[in-house]
Amino acid sequence: MAGGVHGADALAPLTAVVLDALRAGAVRRGGPLPGGGPEGVEERFGALEVLPRHGVGAETALRELVELVAEGAADPADPACAAHLHCPPLAVAAAADLAASALNPSMDSWDQAPAATTVERAVTAELARLVYRRGPGSPGPDALITSGGTESNLLGLLLAREEARAAGGRTLRVVCGATAHHSVRRAAWLLGLPEPVAVECPGGRLDPEAVRGALAALPAGAAALVVATAGTTDEGLIDPLPALADAAAAHRARLHVDAAYGGPLLFSERLAPRLAGVERADSVTCDLHKLGWQPVAAGVLAVADARYLAPLRLTADYLNADDDTEAGLPDLLGRSLRTSRRPDALKIAATLRALGRDGMAALVERCVATAEELAARIDAHPGLRRRPGGTGISTVLFRPTAADRLPPEQGDALVAEVRRRLLQEGRAVLGRARAEDGERGGARLWLKATLLHPHTRAADFAGLLDLAAEPVTPVLPAPRTTARTDGGTV
Amino acid sequence: MAGGVHGADALAPLTAVVLDALRAGAVRRGGPLPGGGPEGVEERFGALEVLPRHGVGAETALRELVELVAEGAADPADPACAAHLHCPPLAVAAAADLAASALNPSMDSWDQAPAATTVERAVTAELARLVYRRGPGSPGPDALITSGGTESNLLGLLLAREEARAAGGRTLRVVCGATAHHSVRRAAWLLGLPEPVAVECPGGRLDPEAVRGALAALPAGAAALVVATAGTTDEGLIDPLPALADAAAAHRARLHVDAAYGGPLLFSERLAPRLAGVERADSVTCDLHKLGWQPVAAGVLAVADARYLAPLRLTADYLNADDDTEAGLPDLLGRSLRTSRRPDALKIAATLRALGRDGMAALVERCVATAEELAARIDAHPGLRRRPGGTGISTVLFRPTAADRLPPEQGDALVAEVRRRLLQEGRAVLGRARAEDGERGGARLWLKATLLHPHTRAADFAGLLDLAAEPVTPVLPAPRTTARTDGGTV
Repeated sequence: MAGGVHGADALAPLTAVVLDALRAGAVRRGGPLPGGGPEGVEERFGALEVLPRHGVGAETALRELVELVAEGAADPADPACAAHLHCPPLAVAAAADLAASALNPSMDSWDQAPAATTVERAVTAELARLVYRRGPGSPGPDALITSGGTESNLLGLLLAREEARAAGGRTLRVVCGATAHHSVRRAAWLLGLPEPVAVECPGGRLDPEAVRGALAALPAGAAALVVATAGTTDEGLIDPLPALADAAAAHRARLHVDAAYGGPLLFSERLAPRLAGVERADSVTCDLHKLGWQPVAAGVLAVADARYLAPLRLTADYLNADDDTEAGLPDLLGRSLRTSRRPDALKIAATLRALGRDGMAALVERCVATAEELAARIDAHPGLRRRPGGTGISTVLFRPTAADRLPPEQGDALVAEVRRRLLQEGRAVLGRARAEDGERGGARLWLKATLLHPHTRAADFAGLLDLAAEPVTPVLPAPRTTARTDGGTV
Repeated sequence: MAGGVHGADALAPLTAVVLDALRAGAVRRGGPLPGGGPEGVEERFGALEVLPRHGVGAETALRELVELVAEGAADPADPACAAHLHCPPLAVAAAADLAASALNPSMDSWDQAPAATTVERAVTAELARLVYRRGPGSPGPDALITSGGTESNLLGLLLAREEARAAGGRTLRVVCGATAHHSVRRAAWLLGLPEPVAVECPGGRLDPEAVRGALAALPAGAAALVVATAGTTDEGLIDPLPALADAAAAHRARLHVDAAYGGPLLFSERLAPRLAGVERADSVTCDLHKLGWQPVAAGVLAVADARYLAPLRLTADYLNADDDTEAGLPDLLGRSLRTSRRPDALKIAATLRALGRDGMAALVERCVATAEELAARIDAHPGLRRRPGGTGISTVLFRPTAADRLPPEQGDALVAEVRRRLLQEGRAVLGRARAEDGERGGARLWLKATLLHPHTRAADFAGLLDLAAEPVTPVLPAPRTTARTDGGTV
């Protein structure tokens, strides 16, 4: 067992095995990810029997499996692993998370997590204050810990749905940008709401006038929620929040801001103005497993008024019986859609206390600055062309100039092929995004670098840029032979 | 950073700090939980500033916070901490989870988790085979990793809702027992479904005849899902699965079994027959953070036919573009309702491989045997009375005989007070459950011991029984002065 007075003694030799295996696996990988693509990885690692009749023992199992996962990782601590909003975690956060695993507090009742409850309360109070610049209260902001932006966005829609229901059973209509994260549509589907109205985003940002038009066009009597994004997944762009808050207010619509990516800019006094207006949102998504360097999961939903969370209240006699609540036992069940719940607040608390607000700001600022330096390097690279316009938070879009010399479809196929070839060969993990090509017009496929590694400089990416510019033969997509079923969710 | 070739070197000194702090905190606690109740814990631990202007550094932050959370934990590794389905985690699982934190694979795309994808596939294949006794395929069973029983039950309802929708847009009606977990009702609420039909459970188990009646009484044309429970939260009872499968089949209803608690009985050849009929369910919830000794979260949803998962399919160009999927990159987005997702399969894999099926079976059998021994000890204790009837999986209900000598309401208040006093004094964490009193008739409040510690014997609980029998003055509930708002969820 990992807990109790002797838990640490049981854990010590096993964590030593894990650290050795992490080291050995990383050395054997020798790059950002394993080569050979999905088939190669499956061949090398797929043979291990997971549930043998007789066990192999803890040390052997850990050595085998951790080496395997380390050797076969796409490691965001390598600068060439820059595809996604997938951060390298800070050692302090990973170490704190070990304590969460060992003690295993569960956040659904106080008697499973006495001190962890106190830590979570302190963390959510600070995060509510960060977003809304005032202390928590009722009325006053509050925040919940979630499993990530997807759950936070779901909560944003759910709370608006319940408010509409309470106000006379009106159906909620969601208005979001075409660039909103897919989880917004998925949440509407899950919650049984009508398909969101997707407003076009010229230049990648929501147009407040178009939102006003969409709100005006809703059926009479509908309740509405505007979902804005502060840091789009594809480009890192921030919607014009003050104008969107005005538009929502003019139509008595609620406003949810998905700041999963951009939220941590608020740690920095210099960058926080980019998110001006976020404090006017009824609810705000923020992920600390992106620009917060936490191991997944470290999601947050902040709300402007703690009373907005009331629909989540729930009584289960075994967890929060009325007489226990009256006797002073905290009622935690309304703090999440989950029941058993890992104390993700612990690693967040350890990180924030270790770095302080200044330290968090410095890391965020470094990522943003590195992206700007990288953009300049791409502009100077003869084999690459950057997407026209500025840099979004820490995201840079670019493509090989070879792609520009081909007809559009072939050029896009070449971009996709560059990305897949680098993946296949284990040399880099770059992302992809379709976005407009400025004055040239038309949407193009771009390579995407999302810079979340706070200890890199643009120079660390020089090799990556040369790789992306290497000549490659585009593979045109084969004619479709099978229909793709996407359920009701796309 | 925790990853990369130097990640282990950064982690090593910090994990040493964490292990020391876990040890120091457990010694200072000196029992199953801290004394002083919520106020005392808040006073002692609530003063730490979580987001100072300047950080205190990683080692100091970890020492402070981990000691605090360890000293202030309700530690399930202590036998007197036996309230909930809240297990002490195995050291091998906690150690493997450190690797998950350090490498931070995210399971929403292959290029964030190459080898972790392989591990998850192996784990879900074994778990599907465990539940359905045949290998995965399409058609053939499959399994998903979830954040716990609550999400698994949500998926069970969602998949049935989508099937009903595809079959002509019929509304799904859920029929469950009054003893079903609260997450079933909450899922229906979340999904916009009608309130589930709750069938009475005489003796704590669903009555198949009553389920047939409830199905027959549904509006004509409604699609139906029967939710059975294999291991109720309050009593650990298993519904009569074969007869319920017959009832569901007779009405062309789908069957979901919530085996969050009981599922791991399937590891044991001796105990698996108690779950006979589970393989007839369309979907099955199973939590390995209960009788599987994993740190939260380690939830599973198994389905009889992989094609049943089709409604979860989703395309997001940045994660699983069609041309990438056609080129052979695994499409993982339909494997969860979450997007970013921690590789909880890694700790499960390490545990299963370390212990083997025999080892898992031995631990499950030990918990069940200890509960039976504990029941015998309670029967022999002069100050306690056990709830009439058998023992449910590893759950035992009992109450002080002093409570029996009082009028019913006062007796129940005494039971609640015993539990709260032990909590307040930091001496034990016992659960509570309302359940029928056999031939005496009427529902009573009982103390609940849920035995999930696989290294304990009934003798380890002797002190706990004496504590529960100590005299105490019941505190009657004060008259209600405020209304409790429970949203639409109760």
